[in-house]
Amino acid sequence: MPNAPLDRSPVALAQSLIRCPSVTPEEGGALTWLAGILEEAGFTVERPRFSEAGTPDIDNLYARIGTRAPYLLFAGHTDVVPPGDVARWGHGPFDGTVENGILYGRGAVDMKGGIACMLAAALDYLDVAGPDLPGSIGFLITGDEEGPAINGTVKLLEWARARGERFDHCLLGEPTNPDSLGDMIKIGRRGSLTGRLVVQGRQGHVAYPDLAENPIPGLLRLASALLAEPLDAGTRHFDASNLEFTTLDVGNEATNVIPAEARATFNVRFNETWTAETLGAEIRARLDRAAGRSVRYTLALLPSNSPAFLTEPDVFTELVAGAITTETGRRPLLSTTGGTSDARFIKDACPVIEFGLVGRTMHQTDECVPVADLHRLTAIYTRVLAAYFEAR
Amino acid sequence: MPNAPLDRSPVALAQSLIRCPSVTPEEGGALTWLAGILEEAGFTVERPRFSEAGTPDIDNLYARIGTRAPYLLFAGHTDVVPPGDVARWGHGPFDGTVENGILYGRGAVDMKGGIACMLAAALDYLDVAGPDLPGSIGFLITGDEEGPAINGTVKLLEWARARGERFDHCLLGEPTNPDSLGDMIKIGRRGSLTGRLVVQGRQGHVAYPDLAENPIPGLLRLASALLAEPLDAGTRHFDASNLEFTTLDVGNEATNVIPAEARATFNVRFNETWTAETLGAEIRARLDRAAGRSVRYTLALLPSNSPAFLTEPDVFTELVAGAITTETGRRPLLSTTGGTSDARFIKDACPVIEFGLVGRTMHQTDECVPVADLHRLTAIYTRVLAAYFEAR
Ligand SMILES: [Zn+2]
Ligand SMILES: [Zn+2]
Repeated sequence: MPNAPLDRSPVALAQSLIRCPSVTPEEGGALTWLAGILEEAGFTVERPRFSEAGTPDIDNLYARIGTRAPYLLFAGHTDVVPPGDVARWGHGPFDGTVENGILYGRGAVDMKGGIACMLAAALDYLDVAGPDLPGSIGFLITGDEEGPAINGTVKLLEWARARGERFDHCLLGEPTNPDSLGDMIKIGRRGSLTGRLVVQGRQGHVAYPDLAENPIPGLLRLASALLAEPLDAGTRHFDASNLEFTTLDVGNEATNVIPAEARATFNVRFNETWTAETLGAEIRARLDRAAGRSVRYTLALLPSNSPAFLTEPDVFTELVAGAITTETGRRPLLSTTGGTSDARFIKDACPVIEFGLVGRTMHQTDECVPVADLHRLTAIYTRVLAAYFEAR
Repeated sequence: MPNAPLDRSPVALAQSLIRCPSVTPEEGGALTWLAGILEEAGFTVERPRFSEAGTPDIDNLYARIGTRAPYLLFAGHTDVVPPGDVARWGHGPFDGTVENGILYGRGAVDMKGGIACMLAAALDYLDVAGPDLPGSIGFLITGDEEGPAINGTVKLLEWARARGERFDHCLLGEPTNPDSLGDMIKIGRRGSLTGRLVVQGRQGHVAYPDLAENPIPGLLRLASALLAEPLDAGTRHFDASNLEFTTLDVGNEATNVIPAEARATFNVRFNETWTAETLGAEIRARLDRAAGRSVRYTLALLPSNSPAFLTEPDVFTELVAGAITTETGRRPLLSTTGGTSDARFIKDACPVIEFGLVGRTMHQTDECVPVADLHRLTAIYTRVLAAYFEAR
């Protein structure tokens, strides 16, 4: 018996994806389902699986249709964060229920919904364009974005490069809009650098401070010095770099004991003014100045795979922004705010920008997306494809 | 069979006490042994036992010989801190071994050694003075100095006051000498006040600091403000009051999360410039000034039963200092340094000063005392008794 004809509406596609319980690192059937549809549509599909000691093996997907340039790559992930306490959900997190025009489920916006829209747009566009595509369309989909991200996009890009794949532009479908579809394209991301600061002292009794050396005043001094002056004033496309202390820890429960050591951790979200190296050097210089000869400290900068990057707005950005404006009536902000994404890896392969659904419910209970947004995002992506290949 | 004749050397007495394993709250036979000897020497001995919900019952001892004023009271404790890892001791902590002129054991200096010297001195003096004592000698010995100190000296003094006991002077035998016998008499103690500071913020993601409120910069500001200015410059008999932060705690392990709350604990050792109340008010005023309208904090001051006090040096202090100088050739410093002691309670009953052994090994593995120090301290205490009652 042949398969039932595919319902190619983005809502049906998103429901099918949500029903695959693909909590990182589980593939959950999501990539297999996606591979089947892409193959049927004429894509060549590969399913590289990557391993690394100490981390779970991860399934990934790479699909391409067309052999020529220009090559437009859709990127994303099918893995999702855990649903948390399922009893607190109004609708099963893996049911894909639609109620009153809203589709509920883990991944609805981050980012099975976005992948469904990309898929629906590609299928629509291929119907119109016919078999002789004036370029190439690809899907680079990982199952390890919400996890350690070791066996995901980084290795998938390496693998593709080794095969000789060359992309011209990438559109990553992460949820980028704060409030309404059309608010925001991300054209870059700030980098992230984490440091652990330890100030050494000498333990002793509070009644005999001269026989001890309290590390806490030194930590106060160093931490205050890091907060005293802004790191920079921001740039044309980036906010000012920002340092936040995330914890202070001594862990001494004896109120009559001066502790031996005091620890702090901070995280910096930094703009293109810095690399992790130059920023680390600036932080050390500030600490050294504040420490003088009286504070003994060590600073460990955690290895950072999150550089700051900017995809300088160009004709491709304008093409995407134009499609958004046509479909939504809004002019999207070109932004670099928020956390990191896999775009920080893709940017080494080709110019990458991000546009997807509204992120407000991502990672939350009752994650959901209006059905209307799915249709509108599909229309936007379809317009992008048409405009991208139009002049060719 | 009659008891063997008592070896009244302070070394033998200290050994007998050390062999009673009287780790707080255990009486361990120490007070019973002491009671037997004092009774045999003609003292009237009482053994009040005190209770309080939530704390172990504690045995105490009160002994008096003589009915007239002046009344000189020896005070101390037979309880000891735990030995810790017994395998690390070179001599059993409860064996009372003498080797190469050194007596080893838990309590050797803090303060079974001191009690042995007081006892030896009283027995010696009573031999010389005969039955018609020109005053009174007392022992006020608790088994709860190293523990919560709830069922010890405080209740014992209340109990004695209720019986109509009135003391003229008290000599507390805690180890007061930093390096050599004769270094230091304590004529007062600083007070102790502990505060717990909590700064409230609002949790959030480090990439969105505007949506959160990091409590750590506020804690840095408040803590730095408490350390910025000295509390006072010290007084004639006291060092400057001193504030030490003992811990900082946030306990946030997620390096991408801004925490909701940051906590610090500090302890102040304060001089007679302050009471716990006036000091607490000053600290709150400094915090309020530093907090302004932007830092939300709470301060909890722990109930303090450790006021600062001074026994103004007078003829009794001079008498004790003179005895020390005669026996050791040293002029003792009159000091108020170091931690707290039960003298802070006794000072409400009568003038109290402290002089005992060398404290260097107290609370440590292989706590020990030179046999020569025990003999010399006994000679000092005997001189004090003789001089105290001489003019009567
Ligand atoms: Zn995502
Ligand atoms: Zn003691």
